[in-house]
Amino acid sequence: MTTAKQIKPAERVSHFSRDVWSIFTPLALETKAINLGQGYMNFAPPAIVQNAAKEAIDVIEANQYSHPRGRARLRNALAASYSQQFERQLDPETEILVTAGANEGMFATFAGFLDKGDEVICMEPFFDQYIPNITMNGGKPVYVPLRPPTDAADRVISSHEWTLDIDELKSKITSKTKMIVINTPHNPIGKVFDEDELRAIGRVAEEHNLIILSDEVYDRLYYPPLNKFPRVANIDNLWERTISVGSGGKSFAATGWRVGWLIGPEHLIKHAFAAQTRVVFCVNSPCQEAVAAGIEASLEKPVFQDQIDQYTHKRSILSKLFDELKLPYTLPEGAYYLLVNTSKIQIPKDFEFPEILEDRGDDFKMCYWLTKHIGVCAIPPSEFYAKEHWPMAADFARFAFCKTDEVLEQAVERLKALKTYIA
Amino acid sequence: MTTAKQIKPAERVSHFSRDVWSIFTPLALETKAINLGQGYMNFAPPAIVQNAAKEAIDVIEANQYSHPRGRARLRNALAASYSQQFERQLDPETEILVTAGANEGMFATFAGFLDKGDEVICMEPFFDQYIPNITMNGGKPVYVPLRPPTDAADRVISSHEWTLDIDELKSKITSKTKMIVINTPHNPIGKVFDEDELRAIGRVAEEHNLIILSDEVYDRLYYPPLNKFPRVANIDNLWERTISVGSGGKSFAATGWRVGWLIGPEHLIKHAFAAQTRVVFCVNSPCQEAVAAGIEASLEKPVFQDQIDQYTHKRSILSKLFDELKLPYTLPEGAYYLLVNTSKIQIPKDFEFPEILEDRGDDFKMCYWLTKHIGVCAIPPSEFYAKEHWPMAADFARFAFCKTDEVLEQAVERLKALKTYIA
Repeated sequence: MTTAKQIKPAERVSHFSRDVWSIFTPLALETKAINLGQGYMNFAPPAIVQNAAKEAIDVIEANQYSHPRGRARLRNALAASYSQQFERQLDPETEILVTAGANEGMFATFAGFLDKGDEVICMEPFFDQYIPNITMNGGKPVYVPLRPPTDAADRVISSHEWTLDIDELKSKITSKTKMIVINTPHNPIGKVFDEDELRAIGRVAEEHNLIILSDEVYDRLYYPPLNKFPRVANIDNLWERTISVGSGGKSFAATGWRVGWLIGPEHLIKHAFAAQTRVVFCVNSPCQEAVAAGIEASLEKPVFQDQIDQYTHKRSILSKLFDELKLPYTLPEGAYYLLVNTSKIQIPKDFEFPEILEDRGDDFKMCYWLTKHIGVCAIPPSEFYAKEHWPMAADFARFAFCKTDEVLEQAVERLKALKTYIA
Repeated sequence: MTTAKQIKPAERVSHFSRDVWSIFTPLALETKAINLGQGYMNFAPPAIVQNAAKEAIDVIEANQYSHPRGRARLRNALAASYSQQFERQLDPETEILVTAGANEGMFATFAGFLDKGDEVICMEPFFDQYIPNITMNGGKPVYVPLRPPTDAADRVISSHEWTLDIDELKSKITSKTKMIVINTPHNPIGKVFDEDELRAIGRVAEEHNLIILSDEVYDRLYYPPLNKFPRVANIDNLWERTISVGSGGKSFAATGWRVGWLIGPEHLIKHAFAAQTRVVFCVNSPCQEAVAAGIEASLEKPVFQDQIDQYTHKRSILSKLFDELKLPYTLPEGAYYLLVNTSKIQIPKDFEFPEILEDRGDDFKMCYWLTKHIGVCAIPPSEFYAKEHWPMAADFARFAFCKTDEVLEQAVERLKALKTYIA
């Protein structure tokens, strides 16, 4: 007789392996390392947003189910703000969907469009959740790498110098390709795709009638002054085939609120909506009110520009240190990660690594040593590559700078100890 | 050339039809009917819970990502409270999973266990979300009805008189059956399965090595005084094959917070956890803190008993009226719905119904008339039956009594007008 312990899980979850966070988050805690690993803030959301959350808790109906599309106040605020960004009048009833974080919004999009065997183009490095979100819905990720310039080990480069080979992208398209995922500003590179790059990707999508899923969760953290953030949905006719993804958590330093959104044409949004209504039914109500207040405020005050100024300073705290250490890095145009080239760092030969790292990329060892010996936790980006491409990430470590200046300066003090280990 | 408008949705969402809420919620608004349709509260969460939510917003880390299993404070509080309920020491690390509402917890369970073609037994009437949650994950719902006594049109009955025919259940089991869903207290009947009933279902599950998914979101709203709420996981060895589902929103009048939980053995919870980590990553952080505060308070004070007293009174406001009208109903032992037998109500023959109701059960017409003509919105329970069983629901309407006494009394005033229409 079989027993309950022999009940099998679904195939869709049975191959999941241990993720990077479950290794490095406990390690950072245990070793008392400064955690520049996971990309969450150690400072509060803007006061106006925080206060709006507390006010919402006092409103009876703001504690009950929201409309599955999202609360009217938030959809209206997003329409007002993003109509400027998308250069078109957005309809809050049909073109905006509030999601339980950007993650669930992307899950719902894959659930709404992928049938078994459908292929989705993902650029490496990718945000790690994309892959299970695709495979859980029957899809197959197909990888195409972003490549740094050949001399990336020798000098500081701009994130813009990481490029996609369009012919390589084209070579990956098959009759099963359904979707291309773009991530701009890109995690972990910080790359912001320019209009020409987006247009070239868009032409491939048009030629094969593909959906573009543009993960723009860091859209409010775009650093070049004077430039307008380029959106694929604004180019030529690409709006018709693009779902753009935004994040309240990233925009307002509240990653634990789980409020995100999708923006796109009704004929696409409606299917993500159909999926999401069944997956989560609706999104946390009081935090939707708070994000609405933040978006409303941004229409009157330089809420986002103030954040950009703060983050630009944070970025410089880390970049100056790596300049001093002569460790090359990628200077990000957006998002809050510094990708450092660690090839010059020599880990002492007698340093011992735990078994758990044996079947991982070399960058796992470097980040383990940085956490354990230097006392600063960084994330190994091979987690963001398919296994066959792990060597591409071997020389890199990702440092998150979405932390208070004080914490970043403490990290800098510790990282100075690297000097001894740099050849 | 194909265009973006011809992009097909996934098969899993393409057959979804318009749901009952999207018909009756706008109708109630438009006609200014008192909405006893959707089961959300029009009163505030307990003050201690509300205050804890506001305090959490002021704590920096309570606005950032939570552990995907749920915040430690909430898991510890749930372990303390439910270890009593489940008559065993629950491990907050492995046996409790906080979910983005009970709905997402059930979705994650189906995602974690169902492969294409796996069958799931659902009792009619069922909570409507079960069905798409099963089919989206490749499963096939198989229906077995709960039946009222034959004289349910003639007298007030107890929800306990609705019964499952165990032989009928057994006749539905095939080699593909993977799971049985139980809902106790039951929506919309209010039935609480007793130990003998649960044991009989459990034997079938043991014989065929099935998972039992026990939706107990109304567990804190169980009305019979002195009785302990019966849980299937407490019977014989059924713990080993049971995942029980709870709800912060139902427990603390905060349906919009989207905080629920799963409780079960590690060998089952871990697969729901694997799915959930990818679907939503984690759950709203400040509202987890608030629910934790509520659970903690319930260990010291009669938080739930106070609510039960209030709901028992609310139930009586409606039941007295239907007694006066001599309309039979099912008196619920749990949850907050009154299922009324409407067969004696005669809708005037010249009343006109909109086209949208043409392909629906007769109960849709009754609820439409109640909303439009009487001014009180109720929900037609055929929405909770497979189409071939819609006639089983023809004579019923569901009234939610999770409303302030004032609103319920206003509804009573309006419902008195039914007298003229009762044969």
